Amino acid sequence: MTEPLRLGIAGLGTVGVGVVRIVRTHAALLAARTGRPITISAVSARDRGRDRGVNLSQYAWEDDPVALARRDDVDVFVELMGGSDGPALAATRAALETGKDVVTANKAMLAINGQSLAEQAEAAGRVIRFEAAVAGGIPVIKSLTESLAGNEITRVMGVMNGTCNYILTRMEATGQGYDVLFDECARLGYLEADPNLDVGGIDAGHKLTLLSSIAFGTRPDFDGMEIEGIQRITLEDIRQAADMGYRIKLLGVAQKTGRGLEQRMQPCLVPAESPLGQLEGGTNMVVIEGDAVEQIVLRGPGAGQGPTASAVLGDICDIARGTRLPTFGQPAATLEAAPSARSSLPAPYYLRMSLVDKPGVLAKIAQILGNAGISIDRMRQYSHSESAAPVLIVTHKTTREALDEALSAMEGIDVIMTRPVALRIESV
Amino acid sequence: MTEPLRLGIAGLGTVGVGVVRIVRTHAALLAARTGRPITISAVSARDRGRDRGVNLSQYAWEDDPVALARRDDVDVFVELMGGSDGPALAATRAALETGKDVVTANKAMLAINGQSLAEQAEAAGRVIRFEAAVAGGIPVIKSLTESLAGNEITRVMGVMNGTCNYILTRMEATGQGYDVLFDECARLGYLEADPNLDVGGIDAGHKLTLLSSIAFGTRPDFDGMEIEGIQRITLEDIRQAADMGYRIKLLGVAQKTGRGLEQRMQPCLVPAESPLGQLEGGTNMVVIEGDAVEQIVLRGPGAGQGPTASAVLGDICDIARGTRLPTFGQPAATLEAAPSARSSLPAPYYLRMSLVDKPGVLAKIAQILGNAGISIDRMRQYSHSESAAPVLIVTHKTTREALDEALSAMEGIDVIMTRPVALRIESV
Repeated sequence: MTEPLRLGIAGLGTVGVGVVRIVRTHAALLAARTGRPITISAVSARDRGRDRGVNLSQYAWEDDPVALARRDDVDVFVELMGGSDGPALAATRAALETGKDVVTANKAMLAINGQSLAEQAEAAGRVIRFEAAVAGGIPVIKSLTESLAGNEITRVMGVMNGTCNYILTRMEATGQGYDVLFDECARLGYLEADPNLDVGGIDAGHKLTLLSSIAFGTRPDFDGMEIEGIQRITLEDIRQAADMGYRIKLLGVAQKTGRGLEQRMQPCLVPAESPLGQLEGGTNMVVIEGDAVEQIVLRGPGAGQGPTASAVLGDICDIARGTRLPTFGQPAATLEAAPSARSSLPAPYYLRMSLVDKPGVLAKIAQILGNAGISIDRMRQYSHSESAAPVLIVTHKTTREALDEALSAMEGIDVIMTRPVALRIESV
Repeated sequence: MTEPLRLGIAGLGTVGVGVVRIVRTHAALLAARTGRPITISAVSARDRGRDRGVNLSQYAWEDDPVALARRDDVDVFVELMGGSDGPALAATRAALETGKDVVTANKAMLAINGQSLAEQAEAAGRVIRFEAAVAGGIPVIKSLTESLAGNEITRVMGVMNGTCNYILTRMEATGQGYDVLFDECARLGYLEADPNLDVGGIDAGHKLTLLSSIAFGTRPDFDGMEIEGIQRITLEDIRQAADMGYRIKLLGVAQKTGRGLEQRMQPCLVPAESPLGQLEGGTNMVVIEGDAVEQIVLRGPGAGQGPTASAVLGDICDIARGTRLPTFGQPAATLEAAPSARSSLPAPYYLRMSLVDKPGVLAKIAQILGNAGISIDRMRQYSHSESAAPVLIVTHKTTREALDEALSAMEGIDVIMTRPVALRIESV
């Protein structure tokens, strides 16, 4: 094969420009490795006039990404626009309709529309690749789909939103509160246009959706995921966790249970000494456990121009080399529609609550927990000046169901000032 | 493709039996993922009578692995015998001659004979896959060859011999000496039949040879590697390193320099807080740095039945799915014969020596270092009871060449009791 592989790139933000740069600077390297030249036929973005620091004049320009996707001189449509539907989805569908393979970094589109896109791609004999959609430069999609194909995957875990991990580790390091660090992230450009995608756990939830589909052979099921953001984590939580030998991470966990597929993206306590606990700043980490491989840990930059473009190029090189796999590792029609199991596996929990400062209140809380079958490992009430008494409780292993039952019962007795914070303590 | 992919497995030790187990227990999973059944036609090992805990009666038996490799009912020859030549090499060549793909865990064979095997495979239109040859279950070959294909790789590092890392971390944890832990490893079955393959750094050197060929597009060049084992590391070295915030690891490093390809496998000091420094026991870790991806870190079990068989199955599944790449990521004929550069990049060094306890001796050593252009960062002489005075020196950055010049000069002055231990301090 010495025919060039011709790209059409839609979206010329940080990642798109990174891809253009690599295709140009490493033309010889890419040709040597894949056996054929990789070229760019056309590009598309919203604003043609913007200076992107890279000369695009040699490529055809399309204002409309759908038109780009339909061009005859494009073999691979590289979708780097983002958004779960809208132009990204329309152009991706157009590319598949007109016989192009697709490489994308769009986790939202695949988490929401992945099943139907996979079906469309397979019907058309085309592939959709998305290494860049999960954990930036870390080869997690490939490892899970290909390297670990001989394993029954038992659990996938990961810290996959660099902004959240930056906020949480900076809170501990600097003693600054969540709000201060949120503002710092906004200033540094670390936040999505809708910050809730980051701090609300949605972006990371999209990523976990893709991993669990591949890991367990199930249809991507973002709606079946329990998602909780980091907005309610306080410095006090971080300090208490540290005192007990834990760190708080926005941790994604997917595993199959007797009751279905459990997918959670929520702040958890993990042992401070574990690889996940030690992860600082914007770095991402994915932990994959399988019946044969035991456990592998993959770590690297979860975002940024170079790392994300590296992942996009890995996918492009695979296509150039003739590697062709179903989108989620097995034919879309064979993906199972697994029922979603809401946190069915028991775990210890960390609870923080503000109680009305009156005699007998603590006893009531303890009784409610006892009634729900939850036993207390440790309990601690803080000295305080206000009328609210801060109380911390670490439970023994319990189910989320029992915990929720107890939390509801607490709401009924009028001694709780604000909704308690409940964080799972994850064994990693 | 619904034709089965038929395996012939030569070598039924731990890994071979692990592969048989996975093929049997995960038949449905493998077929779902690869789109075709994976079956075993025939097996071969030295001792037919041995009880391996798995029923082999349904597979044809061959005493001669070459005969197995030539069988018409075999599509993929799975070589798990080991050894750089002999039966493994003969059977691998026979498999390629008769049109089979090859999956192997044999790092020695590929480090020594990889270039000619790659040429033979390509001439025959066959592939050789070897994920299991490097770092057990960690997907390092695939990550480097495929995921990072868009990067100019700048450095590859790794702790890739679990036995050495076990000895070094146990020395620190238990305060036991090298000899005691070597004996423990022998008892536990952690050592190769020729223990020098492990503790002498040769096994890890074979692995690094394969990684550097892929990373830099060069012919596998085991002979061009500097190799030093861990046999001379003492408890004192480990304690001194710890005092300075370092750990000692048998670390492989490959990078391209202005003077050629630098490949080193030797005990080094690495920061205790780095991922490499924190690696305990038999776990392996590989760090890959590229111009786009920055740095990724891959960690997992470097040996054992499950993890190694997982890697073998990953390769088998790739073949079943139709993925076909040149052995070292690009055509064998295009691999460069890079000159080997002996430690050309400067670094600080840790030196331990035993000096004759006489006035003026330390001054002589300092003068020799000064003459070689090496400046001293720290120097420390220990209180001692014997006639030999233990002295530790940490130098500022210097070249290995200058250091060797100084070490030779020291030999000439008759004040050194034993050959000094010189360990590079690696920035990771």
